[in-house]
Order: sequence, then C-alpha cells, then structure tokens
Amino acid sequence: MNNELILRNVEKHISLNEDEQKFFLSLLERRVLKKKTLFLQPGEVCRHSAFVVDGALKSYTVDPDGKEHILSFALQDWWISDLYSLISQKPAILYIEAIADAEVLMLSRDNQQLLFEKVPQFERFFRILIEKALVANRQRLIDNLSSTAEERYLRFLEKYPSVPACVPQHNIASYLGITPEFLSKIRARLARGEGKGS
Amino acid sequence: MNNELILRNVEKHISLNEDEQKFFLSLLERRVLKKKTLFLQPGEVCRHSAFVVDGALKSYTVDPDGKEHILSFALQDWWISDLYSLISQKPAILYIEAIADAEVLMLSRDNQQLLFEKVPQFERFFRILIEKALVANRQRLIDNLSSTAEERYLRFLEKYPSVPACVPQHNIASYLGITPEFLSKIRARLARGEGKGS
Repeated sequence: MNNELILRNVEKHISLNEDEQKFFLSLLERRVLKKKTLFLQPGEVCRHSAFVVDGALKSYTVDPDGKEHILSFALQDWWISDLYSLISQKPAILYIEAIADAEVLMLSRDNQQLLFEKVPQFERFFRILIEKALVANRQRLIDNLSSTAEERYLRFLEKYPSVPACVPQHNIASYLGITPEFLSKIRARLARGEGKGS
Repeated sequence: MNNELILRNVEKHISLNEDEQKFFLSLLERRVLKKKTLFLQPGEVCRHSAFVVDGALKSYTVDPDGKEHILSFALQDWWISDLYSLISQKPAILYIEAIADAEVLMLSRDNQQLLFEKVPQFERFFRILIEKALVANRQRLIDNLSSTAEERYLRFLEKYPSVPACVPQHNIASYLGITPEFLSKIRARLARGEGKGS
C-alpha cells in the first residue's frame, strides 16, 4: 500500500516500467516518526527528501524571541525537505517536525543522483517538484505582503483542504502569521456566513 | 561565436550530439536590447528565459515609494527570467531591464517543453539551473538578514567578479540595500586595506 502511494505520486508526472519502479523503491528508506520527533534541525545538513506515507509534518523557523514561524505543512502524499540545505549541502536553517505520528519514505541525495543516472526520467519529476515548490514559496510571500488574514486563511484551506482536521489550531495560526484568538474570530465570522464573497 | 557560448554553457551539465545541438539552437530567438530597454515588466506574463550573449541585464522591483530594489544581475554567459512568472504563467512582479546594450538568446516556455520532449537531457540542465537559482535566492536572503554591508559587498564581488566594471555604482548599492555614499566608504576602506580579513 505504501509503495503504491509513492508510485502513484511519481506517476502523476512520469511513467515507469516495472524494473524502474523496483529500482526506485529499492532506494527508499522507511522511517517511523513519533509525534514531536525532529526530522531535521538547524545546523544539520539535510540529506534526504521525505515522502509522507502517513501522518503530518511541519517545517518552521524559530526567531530570536523563541517564536515559531511555520513555513509549510506536509500531509500524506506530499514531499518535504529543506531544499536549500539538500541542494547546497550547507547547514539547514529549518526545523522539520512530526506534528502527528508519521511514516515517511526517505530518498537520500546520493540515491537521488543514482536515480538520475539510472532512470533519467526522474530529472523531469524532480524538476517539476522543485518548480512547484518555487512557485508556492513565491505565492506565499506575495500573499503575506498583500492579503488580509482572512484571505490568507481561505487560500490556506484551498491549498491544504485536509489540514484543519489533523493540525492544531495554533499551528495554523502560526502559518498564517496571526494569533490563535484572531484565527478563532475569522473562523467564527466565516461560519456565520459573513466571509468575503458569501 | 554566440552559439558556441550557449552550447558551452549547456555542456557544463549535459552532453549533446550534433543533431541535438542543432535542434536546441533552432528553438532560440535572438534579440538585441538597447540600454534601458525593458525585457519584462510587472503585470506581463514572462514567456521566455534569456541567455545573455553580450551586455548586462538586471532584475528588480519598485516599492510604493518608487525606490528600486535590485534582485539580480545577468552578464555574459548567465541566464535570466522571472522564474515564478515563467513557471506559473501568472503576471510577473519583476522588471528585467538592459543596463548596457545587450544581446540575448530567448527560449520560450513552449519551446522549452518541446525541448524536454525531444531531448530529455535538458530536464537535467534546467533542473540544475533552477536548483542553483533557488540556492542563490536563499543565500541572498540569509546574507541580507545576517551580514554586514561590507560582508555583503565582498560576497557580491565573489559572485559577480566582472560586474563592477560594467554596472553603475548606484545599481550595486541598490543590490546591496545601501546608499551609493555608504558603498563608496566601504570601497575606500577596502582599498586602504582595512577590510575584514586583510
């Protein structure tokens, strides 16, 4: 089942024959992460991309005042890593942490290079993945600069429709850059049908 | 000569046979840009990557006070585009402008897709190019948050050794986020051998 999930994910963009599927799967390492386990922390070099088979992870930074700023969530069927650290092999500046018990399939940078050599189609897959990451980061930056908190929350629901069910409210508030109290107010207003466009 | 430059650039990462070279070159459009010509402006959708054969370009944003913030320079043998707009096909938020008379070879997004289909090796080339762009952007962000202006200037000289000769001082100051006067002071201090590490 787990293998089917990642194969279906990859086959959104490329088509693999049976040997290529087997080779790809042979390069993955399974890891179970208990809730609150750190998959990566600042100062470490990120050596793996992780594909979420089950559970949920978040990536975040912590500012000098100890405040957490969430950059992204990764739920089932998403990839997560510190792309900057993974590519440059410089120390990460992100934390990546399980926010629920999780199971991931890890692909190391070395195995990824091997995959590129043996199954060049994966160049296409990861080119598309990195393009999507770049667009999402930039969109997020623009949203934060130019949208209201309510607009950002609506956009968040579009992007992560299944997050509210499995992520604590204060994490969602952190992602949106607002207080949990303000998020409650927005949710109440939307529930009363007073939201934008309703 | 121009074609040799772009072929050498591509062949840093992939090897092409003669037919593949010809096909690639047939997809490029040559464009001459007079100094101050805008290659792209906010609101337009970016449809091309540009490879600089000669001259120099800069990408920048303009804030509500009319102040220009330079994101990157592209000199001979560099690629430039608004990657976000190119990939997402949403309106650009960057200006890209020639800061000297320039000649570029343009590859449209459509022709890039054609290239991916016919010469899949280009998936690798552009995957590497986009990875480098991502690392450079992130490094720049970190530098701006945590380095002094003098450290940023030294890093800039490392990254763009040939820029100071062909780019106006006020553009370099804008890239560094400092005034031209402060840049003059840094340069004078470095020339006197008072710089960091001297």
